Amino acid sequence: MTDSIIGRRNSMRKQFDQIVVGGGVIGCSIAYQLSKRGYHVLLIESGTIGNGASCAAAGMLGAQAEFSSDSVLFDFARESRALFPELARELKEASGIDIELVQKGMLKLAYTQEQLNQLKKMAKFQENAGETAILLTEKAVLLKERKLAPDFLAGLFLPDDGHVSAPMLTSAFARAAQNHHAVLLEHTQVNEIIEQENGLKGVKTGNGSFYCDKLVMATGKDMTNWLPDDMAITPVKGECVSIRPDQPLIGSTIFSDGCYLVPKQDGRIIIGATSFPGITDPVVRVKSVEYLLTRAKQILPAIAYAQMENFWTGIRPQTEDGFPYIGEIPGKQGLYVAAGHYRNGILLSPMTGIMMADLIEGKAAEKYTRSFAVDRAQQAII
Amino acid sequence: MTDSIIGRRNSMRKQFDQIVVGGGVIGCSIAYQLSKRGYHVLLIESGTIGNGASCAAAGMLGAQAEFSSDSVLFDFARESRALFPELARELKEASGIDIELVQKGMLKLAYTQEQLNQLKKMAKFQENAGETAILLTEKAVLLKERKLAPDFLAGLFLPDDGHVSAPMLTSAFARAAQNHHAVLLEHTQVNEIIEQENGLKGVKTGNGSFYCDKLVMATGKDMTNWLPDDMAITPVKGECVSIRPDQPLIGSTIFSDGCYLVPKQDGRIIIGATSFPGITDPVVRVKSVEYLLTRAKQILPAIAYAQMENFWTGIRPQTEDGFPYIGEIPGKQGLYVAAGHYRNGILLSPMTGIMMADLIEGKAAEKYTRSFAVDRAQQAII
Amino acid sequence: MTDSIIGRRNSMRKQFDQIVVGGGVIGCSIAYQLSKRGYHVLLIESGTIGNGASCAAAGMLGAQAEFSSDSVLFDFARESRALFPELARELKEASGIDIELVQKGMLKLAYTQEQLNQLKKMAKFQENAGETAILLTEKAVLLKERKLAPDFLAGLFLPDDGHVSAPMLTSAFARAAQNHHAVLLEHTQVNEIIEQENGLKGVKTGNGSFYCDKLVMATGKDMTNWLPDDMAITPVKGECVSIRPDQPLIGSTIFSDGCYLVPKQDGRIIIGATSFPGITDPVVRVKSVEYLLTRAKQILPAIAYAQMENFWTGIRPQTEDGFPYIGEIPGKQGLYVAAGHYRNGILLSPMTGIMMADLIEGKAAEKYTRSFAVDRAQQAII
Amino acid sequence: MTDSIIGRRNSMRKQFDQIVVGGGVIGCSIAYQLSKRGYHVLLIESGTIGNGASCAAAGMLGAQAEFSSDSVLFDFARESRALFPELARELKEASGIDIELVQKGMLKLAYTQEQLNQLKKMAKFQENAGETAILLTEKAVLLKERKLAPDFLAGLFLPDDGHVSAPMLTSAFARAAQNHHAVLLEHTQVNEIIEQENGLKGVKTGNGSFYCDKLVMATGKDMTNWLPDDMAITPVKGECVSIRPDQPLIGSTIFSDGCYLVPKQDGRIIIGATSFPGITDPVVRVKSVEYLLTRAKQILPAIAYAQMENFWTGIRPQTEDGFPYIGEIPGKQGLYVAAGHYRNGILLSPMTGIMMADLIEGKAAEKYTRSFAVDRAQQAII
Repeated sequence: MTDSIIGRRNSMRKQFDQIVVGGGVIGCSIAYQLSKRGYHVLLIESGTIGNGASCAAAGMLGAQAEFSSDSVLFDFARESRALFPELARELKEASGIDIELVQKGMLKLAYTQEQLNQLKKMAKFQENAGETAILLTEKAVLLKERKLAPDFLAGLFLPDDGHVSAPMLTSAFARAAQNHHAVLLEHTQVNEIIEQENGLKGVKTGNGSFYCDKLVMATGKDMTNWLPDDMAITPVKGECVSIRPDQPLIGSTIFSDGCYLVPKQDGRIIIGATSFPGITDPVVRVKSVEYLLTRAKQILPAIAYAQMENFWTGIRPQTEDGFPYIGEIPGKQGLYVAAGHYRNGILLSPMTGIMMADLIEGKAAEKYTRSFAVDRAQQAII
Repeated sequence: MTDSIIGRRNSMRKQFDQIVVGGGVIGCSIAYQLSKRGYHVLLIESGTIGNGASCAAAGMLGAQAEFSSDSVLFDFARESRALFPELARELKEASGIDIELVQKGMLKLAYTQEQLNQLKKMAKFQENAGETAILLTEKAVLLKERKLAPDFLAGLFLPDDGHVSAPMLTSAFARAAQNHHAVLLEHTQVNEIIEQENGLKGVKTGNGSFYCDKLVMATGKDMTNWLPDDMAITPVKGECVSIRPDQPLIGSTIFSDGCYLVPKQDGRIIIGATSFPGITDPVVRVKSVEYLLTRAKQILPAIAYAQMENFWTGIRPQTEDGFPYIGEIPGKQGLYVAAGHYRNGILLSPMTGIMMADLIEGKAAEKYTRSFAVDRAQQAII
Repeated sequence: MTDSIIGRRNSMRKQFDQIVVGGGVIGCSIAYQLSKRGYHVLLIESGTIGNGASCAAAGMLGAQAEFSSDSVLFDFARESRALFPELARELKEASGIDIELVQKGMLKLAYTQEQLNQLKKMAKFQENAGETAILLTEKAVLLKERKLAPDFLAGLFLPDDGHVSAPMLTSAFARAAQNHHAVLLEHTQVNEIIEQENGLKGVKTGNGSFYCDKLVMATGKDMTNWLPDDMAITPVKGECVSIRPDQPLIGSTIFSDGCYLVPKQDGRIIIGATSFPGITDPVVRVKSVEYLLTRAKQILPAIAYAQMENFWTGIRPQTEDGFPYIGEIPGKQGLYVAAGHYRNGILLSPMTGIMMADLIEGKAAEKYTRSFAVDRAQQAII
Repeated sequence: MTDSIIGRRNSMRKQFDQIVVGGGVIGCSIAYQLSKRGYHVLLIESGTIGNGASCAAAGMLGAQAEFSSDSVLFDFARESRALFPELARELKEASGIDIELVQKGMLKLAYTQEQLNQLKKMAKFQENAGETAILLTEKAVLLKERKLAPDFLAGLFLPDDGHVSAPMLTSAFARAAQNHHAVLLEHTQVNEIIEQENGLKGVKTGNGSFYCDKLVMATGKDMTNWLPDDMAITPVKGECVSIRPDQPLIGSTIFSDGCYLVPKQDGRIIIGATSFPGITDPVVRVKSVEYLLTRAKQILPAIAYAQMENFWTGIRPQTEDGFPYIGEIPGKQGLYVAAGHYRNGILLSPMTGIMMADLIEGKAAEKYTRSFAVDRAQQAII
C-alpha cells in the first residue's frame, strides 16, 4: 500500500455520513459502495489496509465448492460471485488496479468411496440448484489436468468458481473508495465508540474523535470487543505456503481432502490451509509447512521441483453457525456490524458491501437481513 | 516345494558323475543342464530347494537395465536373457511348471537433469551394442503407463527386458533335473569336502558320504567357507515388499532412483529393494518397509489403496569386481565354483548352468572362463 | 486353535440349556460363565474360535483411557477391569492358558495445548471418579519412558489400565468352558433361528438342528442379520501392525493422537489402529501401513530399527450410542443379544459374560440392563 | 550492510598497494589482514559485501567435524579455528561488530553400526592428532541433549568445534578493513584484468580503472572465468532452512547423516544443507525444504512446533581435490588467487587472510604454499 491512499490527517473534516472501522476486504467493500452512492465516508484501519486475513487469503471464489446443502448463504455466495466480472471492470476503471480475476473453475477430487459419495451428493444438489457441476472420471480429469497424481477415483468440476488476488481486491476497493472521496485513515486505533443522546455516533481514536450518522464495525477477528457477549466470533488460524513452478502445472483450482492448490495469474501456486480454531499466534509452524508440502506433493507430484516462495498465516473470524453477521446491533440504532465471514470473506465481499449500503438506506432484502441478523439465535428460539 | 522332488534317502546310490552343492537357482540350473546331458547328478541343499535369495528375488531379467557400459558380463547377460523363451517351453514340458515369463520391457525414469544425462548415455551405449533402447518424453511415457506420478523428465524404455517368477524358475530347474534322473537331497548339511589322491571328490554330510568325479559348489552367500582366502564374497542384504492392487497399475517394470516395481503375472507388484552390504540378519526392518512404500508411492501414487501382501529379505552374494565366479578352483582339480551373481542370479542362471556343464566337458568359451575365473585378480596383476 | 477344542460331531446331543452363537471373546466368555454355573452349553462358531475381531485386537484394558466423562459404561468397564487378576488365575487353572495379563499402566501424551487441556479435564474427571490418573511433565514422562521422542508437552499416566493377549483370552474362555462340559462346534453356519410355540428355541445349522431354553446371539459384526431393523450395528474396520524391537523400548502402553503402541509380553509392540466406519473388506491397505509406521516412528523413533512382524485387520461392531447391546430382544422371550462392544470387547468380556448369565438367571443389575437394553432408544423417547 | 561501508566513488584514488576482487568472507579477510599491516587496499565487489555464499553459510567452525583422516588442510583448519577467540575480540574493537562466536562443541550421531564404526575411527584419528574427541553412549548424549530423538547408537562429541555468525563475520572483516583505511567499492563489476609490461596490475571496471602492485582474485564460484583451463572450480549448490523454537532445544551443533542443526546465538536453528554439484540456479526447491524439515524432525522431533523463519541457497566453490587454491597464478607474477574453500570458507577465512598477506610479503609457510598452489596437480605428476 503506497502513501497515496493514506489520508492527510491535518485539518481533516471531523463529521461524516458514515464511518467504517476495519480496513480488510469487508470494510473496504462497504466504504466503496457507500462512497459510490455519494456519501461522505471515513474508513479507519488500525494497521495498514488489507494487511490481515484479507491479504493472507488465497482469493478463492468457491460459491459452489464451499457448499453441499441448501442455505441462504449459498444464495448470497452465488449472487456475490456473479458480481465479479462487472466489478473487475468497474474497479479497474475506478482504481487502476487489476484484481486478477480467473474463472477457470474448481476441481474437487475424491480419493475414497466415501469422498466419491459426497461428490455425487454435491453434484446432485448443485444441479438441482441450477448450477453446473460435472462429475468426471479419473481419465477425464487427467485429460484436463495431466500433472495430477493419478490415484483418485473421480473429480467434480465446478466451471463457474474461480479466484482473484485477495490483496489486489482489497487495495482496489480502498483506492476506488478514495477516488469517490472517501477518506482513508490508517495506523489509527479506535479506542471507544461514542453514542450521543441525539443518536449521533462517533469514535474516539488516537488521532482524535470523528462523528457520523451511521457507524459500521468491520474489524474481523478483533470484533469480539465490540459485540454483545452472546455473539461469539472464534478466530481460526490458517497457514499457507506459496510455490513457483518452472511452468504451469494446473489450470483450475484443485480441492482435495485437507488441502487446496490455487494457480494464481502470476505463476505462483498457493497451497492452503491449516485450520486451528482458537489459535491466534501469528507464526507459521514447521509442522504446518511440512504437512502442506507433503499433502500437495501427493496431489501434484511435480511441485517437488518447484521453487519455494513464501509462507504466512491469517486469522479468519468464524461465527457459531457459520453465517456472517451483517446488520444493526439490537438496541443500538445506527451501529452496524459486518464480520464473521470466515473462509469466504473475499467471495462475499461484493454482496456484503452492497447489502450494508442497502441496510443503511433501509432497503436490504429481508431474506438476508433475517439470516445474517446479529440476534438471529434469540429469534430462532422464539 | 512338494515331497516329490525330495530324493528317497534309503538305499540311495553313493557314487555320481557330479555332485552340486546348493539348491538355489544357480545350483538347480547346473544340475538341470548336467542331467539333461545324461550325467548322473546329485543335488544337495542344506534347507529347502529355492528357499534363499533365489526365492526372495523379484525375478527381473534386466540384461539391459543393469548395464550402462561395455563388459563381458553384459554379453553374458544378454546371451542368458535370449535363452528364456525357449527355456520356458522346455521347462514347462520337462517339469510341468510355468516360470511366468513376461517380456513387456523395463522403463527407467529420470527425475533430475543428472539422471536424464545418465539415461541418454545409457541409450547411446545400448544402441551401439545393437540393443533397442528408446528414450521417451514424459508425455510418451504417460501414454504407456498412465498411472505414474507425472513429475519425471523422461524415461528409457528397454522393450526386451522382462521378468520371471524366481521361485517357479528354481522349482522348474529342480524338478526338470529330477525328471532327467538327478537325485535331490534336501535338509542335508555338507560338513566336509573329500579329496582323494586318485582325484576322486566327495562330500561328508549329515546323511552320509557321497562321491563324484566333479564337485560343484554353488552355495551363494555361504560360499566364503569353501573359497580361498583372497576370494571374498560379500553378503548384501536386500529387503522387498509385495502389494496387490485392485486392478493392474503398470505394464512394464519401473526402475527409478532407489526403487523398482515389478508387475508380476499373478497381479502382485514386487517393490524392491534395500541394499545393505555386510548385513546378514534375516529380518525386515520397519525403516525399510516405510522407505520402500514411501518411495513407491511417489512413483506410483495409486498403490496407496493397494493391499499389503508380504515383506521378506534375501542375502545376495557379491564379489569385489561385481563379476560372478564360475570356474575350477586353482590347484583343486575337479572342484568347481559358481557363485557371486549378486542381483542377477535369476537372469544369469541359464547361461551359468550351460557354462558349468561346458566347463566340466572341457569346452567352455575362453572369453567367459577368463573373466569369471576364480583367480582373475592375480592374473590381472601379471 | 488346536483340534482338541473342536467338538465331536457324531452322535452329539441335540438339546442344551443354552446355545451361544458366535465364538468371539464375547460368546466364549458367556459360554464360560454359563457352563461354570453348571448349565449344558453349546457354542457355535461359523469359522474358527477367536479368529475375527477378537483375535485382531491389541488386547488393551483401557477402562480409564477410553473414557473422559461419566457414564454407566465407564462403571461397567471399571468393574470388568477389576475382574482380570482373579480371572487370569481362574482361566490358567481351568484351561492351562496364560492370558498374558500386564498391568503396567497406560500413558496418554499431549502434543498441543488443546490436547493438554483435554488431559487435564480427563485427569480431573478420573480423580473425581476415585481413579488414579497422574498428570506428568514431559521430563517426568521421559524418566519413565526414555525412548519417546521428546516433543510432547505432558502425559497422563493411568497406572491401573493394562492389557492381555486377546487371542489367548478368547482361547482360554473357550477351553475353560469346554472343561466345564460346554460343547464347541466350529465351522458351523447358523442358517435360521427356530422359535417353537412352547417357547423352545433352537437353530438350524449346516450340521443339523440344535435346541435350547435360551439362545444367545453374539455374532459381532454379523449381528445385523439377527437384529430388529432399528438396531443398527455399524462395522468399523481397523488395521494394525506388529513389530519386534531388538530390546524393550516402552514399558507402558502409549496413547497418542491417532495411534497407540502396546508392548506385549512376548516382546512385540502392536501399533494400532486405523478406523474406517462402514468398510468391511478384509485387506490391509498400503496407505494404512505407511500411516501407522510413520506415526509410530514420530512417537517412538527407535522403532525404525525394529523388525516388521505382521499386519492384519479386524472389523469392530459399533452401535449408534457407543454402548453395547446386552439383553433380551423385545417380544422374543428367551432370545438374547450381546454385541456392539466396538473397541472394548476384550475389556468388557468378563462382565458381559457374568451379566448375560445373570440375565438368564433373572438377577442382572437393573442399572446395566436398562442402559444396555436392545430397545433403549425407544424407551428414551417416551 | 549500511551505506557507510560503501566507498565514496568520486575523486577516489586510482592506485593501491593491493586490489582484492570479491567481497565474500575470503576477500574481506584478506583485505582486513593487508590493511591491518598498513597497506593501501581496494576491495571490489560486484554486488553487496557478504551477500553470496558467505552470507548463506551456517557459520560452522568444524575443524574436527569435517575431517576423518590426516591432511595439510586439517592442520590449516585447526590453526584457523584457534584464531577465532582473539579475532572475535579484535574485530569487535576494530568494527564494533560481534561475530557471535559460540564454542559449545559439535556432536556427530551414529544411527547404524556402519556409522558407529566411522565415528570410532574418527575418534581414534582425532586423539592421535592431539585433539579432544569423546565417544558417548546414547544415554550420555541424552544427558547433554535431552530433546534428541532417542533412536541413535552413540555420539562423538567434539568440544572445541563451534560456530560464528557468517554474515556478521564478513561484515566485521569489511568494516574493520575500512577502519584500517581500506576502500570498499560495491556494485562494481570487474570487466578485465590489466597486466602492464612493467608488472603493474589493475582492473577495468564499470566505475573506471584501478591499479595496484598485487591483485588478489577471491570471487568464489565465479572464479572459473579468471583461472587457467585446467583449474576447475565446481559450483555446489546448497540449500538451508532456519527455524525459531519457543525455547532452546539443543546446546551443541548436531551432525547427522544428511543433515546438521546449528543453534545460533539469536535463538534460531539453522538446518542444512542439500548439496547439488554443478547446479547454480538461485532458488530453493520445494523438495529440499521438505527433505530438510523431515530429516531434522527425525533427529529433533520438537522442531515440529517451532516457527518457520526463512530458507535460502548458497553456491559453494569446490576444487577437484577438495583443497582451496591459495597462491600466485603460474606465469602471472603479482596475480593471486584465493578460492575453492567449499563448505569451510568461514572456518578457513582467518588463516587464508593471513597466508595471503604472508604470500604477498614473501613469507608464507612452505607447507601450505605447496599444498594449496594453483598448479599442484601438475607438480604431483612430476
